[in-house]
Amino acid sequence: MTSSTETSREQDLLGRFRAGQRTALARAISMVENGRPGFEALLSELHGEMLRAHRIGITGPPGAGKSTLTSRLAMEYRKAEEKVGIVAVDPSSPFTGGALLGDRIRMTNISTDPGVFIRSMATRGALGGLATTTKEVADLLDAYGFERVVMETVGVGQSELEIAGTADTCVVVLVPESGDSIQAMKAGLMEIADVFVVNKSDRPGADKLANELELMLHMRLGDMPQSAGHHGVSLKTVGRHARESARQAAAESGAWAIPVIKTVGQSGEGVEELARTLDRHRVYLQDSGEMSRRRRARLEERVRAVVERRLQRLAWKSGRGEEILAQALPELEGGGQSPYEVAERIVAELGITQR
Amino acid sequence: MTSSTETSREQDLLGRFRAGQRTALARAISMVENGRPGFEALLSELHGEMLRAHRIGITGPPGAGKSTLTSRLAMEYRKAEEKVGIVAVDPSSPFTGGALLGDRIRMTNISTDPGVFIRSMATRGALGGLATTTKEVADLLDAYGFERVVMETVGVGQSELEIAGTADTCVVVLVPESGDSIQAMKAGLMEIADVFVVNKSDRPGADKLANELELMLHMRLGDMPQSAGHHGVSLKTVGRHARESARQAAAESGAWAIPVIKTVGQSGEGVEELARTLDRHRVYLQDSGEMSRRRRARLEERVRAVVERRLQRLAWKSGRGEEILAQALPELEGGGQSPYEVAERIVAELGITQR
Repeated sequence: MTSSTETSREQDLLGRFRAGQRTALARAISMVENGRPGFEALLSELHGEMLRAHRIGITGPPGAGKSTLTSRLAMEYRKAEEKVGIVAVDPSSPFTGGALLGDRIRMTNISTDPGVFIRSMATRGALGGLATTTKEVADLLDAYGFERVVMETVGVGQSELEIAGTADTCVVVLVPESGDSIQAMKAGLMEIADVFVVNKSDRPGADKLANELELMLHMRLGDMPQSAGHHGVSLKTVGRHARESARQAAAESGAWAIPVIKTVGQSGEGVEELARTLDRHRVYLQDSGEMSRRRRARLEERVRAVVERRLQRLAWKSGRGEEILAQALPELEGGGQSPYEVAERIVAELGITQR
Repeated sequence: MTSSTETSREQDLLGRFRAGQRTALARAISMVENGRPGFEALLSELHGEMLRAHRIGITGPPGAGKSTLTSRLAMEYRKAEEKVGIVAVDPSSPFTGGALLGDRIRMTNISTDPGVFIRSMATRGALGGLATTTKEVADLLDAYGFERVVMETVGVGQSELEIAGTADTCVVVLVPESGDSIQAMKAGLMEIADVFVVNKSDRPGADKLANELELMLHMRLGDMPQSAGHHGVSLKTVGRHARESARQAAAESGAWAIPVIKTVGQSGEGVEELARTLDRHRVYLQDSGEMSRRRRARLEERVRAVVERRLQRLAWKSGRGEEILAQALPELEGGGQSPYEVAERIVAELGITQR
């Protein structure tokens, strides 16, 4: 009886969700966040409705002004009457309550707009991993009908980078002050950027940073034989002219030349250009077939993540695993048994027949 | 035949590891890092030899000077002829090759010392999760005989914070410039700190930051009924005197009052005090029974992580899961099937009998 009641309650939720009720969206999100019974069934039901939104990842070091920029971008989209869903996984984000009063006030501009939905994720204790849960919340926003789904994450940390990196378009935000930090995070951030933003670009050092980024991108572009070889761009020439040539060569060869855009989040300067660039990237994704490739990779990765989450749950579901663990603790502590031996016994209890 | 050859090779590695051969340590670490066959057996064998080192986590925002401080601390321990193993999971760490030339030169002081071993972890693609692998490398350093095992991680990101948080003693390093960043990372960092360090404390704002931290810690201390109630510390009084009283109250009640230490990593100022404080914390851990509690929690957590890692491997081992996934891709893309339905089928293939 309980389960059929539950099922009808889920059907009801699904109906209200599809009818565009905000409260249903909020409930669906918290079901997913807390891994409550039926959350996977709900996501499964909505799967066919999830391929519409343009998913934008916004990431960068703490203090880069990601949230302000996200708000500005949302306002820009609202001018065109596009609906915007925002998921923030950033301890410094005003969305997650970690920020200064000034930021929070600024947010109210968009947070009272019915065309904008903001959800902050708890960065701790997400069941089966922060990354998967966050992407599932983005899925819900997509299915609900937001045309733009922005995922804001801090650009440090394995899970956090992964989230932004699986968006359709990934924006990496840096600031002149980053200094060491850019150096610091170059590796991981460089790999996932589709667009670079130099934010707070009214501050000293902004041009220098933008130039360094351009140079770095050019050198990387030069590494690609198809653009260097076919179009005769010299790898040694690093002037603006050469960079422009490299970019043009990339464009001609159908590749995406990662742009560097200067913005001032506080005033909104450069945000219109950013929005245009994101649209240009979306067109590129569609025309080049890269959109399908990214979405396919995302689906594959999701299947893997869900399999692993289910197995995790199965391992601890019966309580037998906990029992074995509790009994083994004294020996584990004494050194007489190792965690690997105990784990072996717990896995054996599952009676997996296909090995 | 192959497997018995492998076993004898492993026995040989184990023998050389126990005899203190550096090359054996390096090989054992890369076995673990790459999840090569036999890596769990090796860790399992060494389990009984792993409870000796004082494990110190050092974390904080990018640019806080964690690596320099780690080097200084290592030098301090070397004065007392203690051997120091360092694992760095920090993209900005000179240990991981991400830093400026100046840093790298400074490191050579300790990197040529045979009493110091430094290992940087790749932050991407660690099998079964960065956190577990890093902790297993720390285990190896412990088993090898390093008296201090320092884990340096950047203090942003779920996995990275978790690593530092599971050390015996967790040091959170901040700098006056952090500004927004402190605010940013307060939540996660506050929870795991046993000791706060204000590094680069010769710069403006260091005293202000130290005072703010003291105040924050005092207020948190005030929240604890046993210290506030029993010792009559007023929660409203926030002056230095009251803070001192609160700390004393905590000490009397047997709790650990989190200290705030000012250092200058570049010159080494304050590092001796930091080392003394870490020792004081170790004594506290032992006397209070907290050391056993933390190690027990670490063992429990390890069993769970190993179970989950094994299940992950089992799920994809036979190739049947990949097959199902590949076949389902067109329908997944078309929206006709959801990742949850495909995952269900892959899990079913495992034939788990205990449900």
